[in-house]
Amino acid sequence: MTDFKRLSLNQITTDLWNLREALDGCARAGIPQIAIWRHKVAEGGLAEAKRLVRDAGIRVSSLCRGGMFPAATASERQARLDDNRRAVEEAAELGTDTLVLVCGPAPDRDIATARRWVAEGIEQLLPFAKSRGVKLAIEPLHPMYAAERSVVVTLDQANTMAEAYATDEVGVIVDVFHVWWDPELYKQIQRASGRILGFHVSDWIVPTPHMLMGRGMMGDGVIEIRRIREAVEAAGYAGPIEVEIFNQAIWDRPGDDVLAQIKARYMEHV
Amino acid sequence: MTDFKRLSLNQITTDLWNLREALDGCARAGIPQIAIWRHKVAEGGLAEAKRLVRDAGIRVSSLCRGGMFPAATASERQARLDDNRRAVEEAAELGTDTLVLVCGPAPDRDIATARRWVAEGIEQLLPFAKSRGVKLAIEPLHPMYAAERSVVVTLDQANTMAEAYATDEVGVIVDVFHVWWDPELYKQIQRASGRILGFHVSDWIVPTPHMLMGRGMMGDGVIEIRRIREAVEAAGYAGPIEVEIFNQAIWDRPGDDVLAQIKARYMEHV
Repeated sequence: MTDFKRLSLNQITTDLWNLREALDGCARAGIPQIAIWRHKVAEGGLAEAKRLVRDAGIRVSSLCRGGMFPAATASERQARLDDNRRAVEEAAELGTDTLVLVCGPAPDRDIATARRWVAEGIEQLLPFAKSRGVKLAIEPLHPMYAAERSVVVTLDQANTMAEAYATDEVGVIVDVFHVWWDPELYKQIQRASGRILGFHVSDWIVPTPHMLMGRGMMGDGVIEIRRIREAVEAAGYAGPIEVEIFNQAIWDRPGDDVLAQIKARYMEHV
Repeated sequence: MTDFKRLSLNQITTDLWNLREALDGCARAGIPQIAIWRHKVAEGGLAEAKRLVRDAGIRVSSLCRGGMFPAATASERQARLDDNRRAVEEAAELGTDTLVLVCGPAPDRDIATARRWVAEGIEQLLPFAKSRGVKLAIEPLHPMYAAERSVVVTLDQANTMAEAYATDEVGVIVDVFHVWWDPELYKQIQRASGRILGFHVSDWIVPTPHMLMGRGMMGDGVIEIRRIREAVEAAGYAGPIEVEIFNQAIWDRPGDDVLAQIKARYMEHV
């Protein structure tokens, strides 16, 4: 990359910061966009979050996260749907048209049924999302999260689910950490043309220190980030590039240092 | 399952045992087959291993492992190939026709080239394997091992590689731990008809304690083991069912206790 116009800080990367601190950090670093997490919004409330975002002049690239559709009982699945409607509302209020869906694990061993519940959840959520101008962005997670976070684990699967809808209704997120291993990656990115609603970068460190908290800074791992970025662009995506890193060692560092490193690595490796 | 005729102890499950102890354990437990690891053979030498196996009257279901084809230099790739020829020789000497291939990681970020090297390695190894009556069994590993153990990570990919050869030359291993998450699983098992050279069982524990040493005993996790076993059988496989569990807590228990639990769980969950 040659400038920071498309750079977005996914807020989880500087988890020790609250929303105000993250927005201030982005402003200081000249990072024009942020991806916000709902639990950070909840700390001060939606009205306060909306005011902070507006005052900071930082654009919100996406809200993390909706999803978590599968549950053992119909009433619990309804509760999840209600919560997804609140997530849509928050996205709209915060000024982003993209709600990232982490689709959720199965409540039992029946992964096929859980996948059906995800599809049903998206179907049920969509009318409200459309009414609020919010697109649903299915993020396939790495298969190592299949049991605990998402039964949607490949871009193929996310594409198939999204293709049931118009391109301006449901799309996919391409996160290099989740999809880099996939032999079908470039074919599926091409297939996602017009439906890519977000591009997330980090890296896969070797050896991997931890299943959840082991993501690396761009350049510290084995992912061909630039090649994937170019494929995503060839598929028509020119939107925000979110840096999303779950890593305790990075969380433990001062946020401003992390942002400075993100900017350097973004230029060199994205 | 209703009897133990197809049960095989993959030796890594009782890692604290040497080959003699594992064979004795199988004999005591009435487990008729064992999958042997090369580093266990190396401890006492091939001739000794061959004698121990013959004396114990235990059948060898497979040898673990060949593979590890990608390497940065041509001479290193040649050395890997030479080592694979020794693995073929050991398999033949130990009386199994199945060499399991853990195909290896890329030496750098270029996963596509590494995948090509795997295909070339199999191509180069095959004539010798055929001459010794040994089939090459491509085992797709879980994608979380893509950077450190195998660039072959889906059954789709393994099937495509195997289909370049006759069914009695190159096939695939279906290991439930590695493939359970795959939305294409049942389609790809069907596609592998006539090429399935092994079926491995364990379980995926939630939460997963460790990326490498976190496999569970059958029944302790979320994998639909029986459903997958039935699919493998519907695809024509009636061979050994290997129990292969990398788990420090299981390794720390007395081997005879582990074998007793394996037998009970095999009846209940496989």
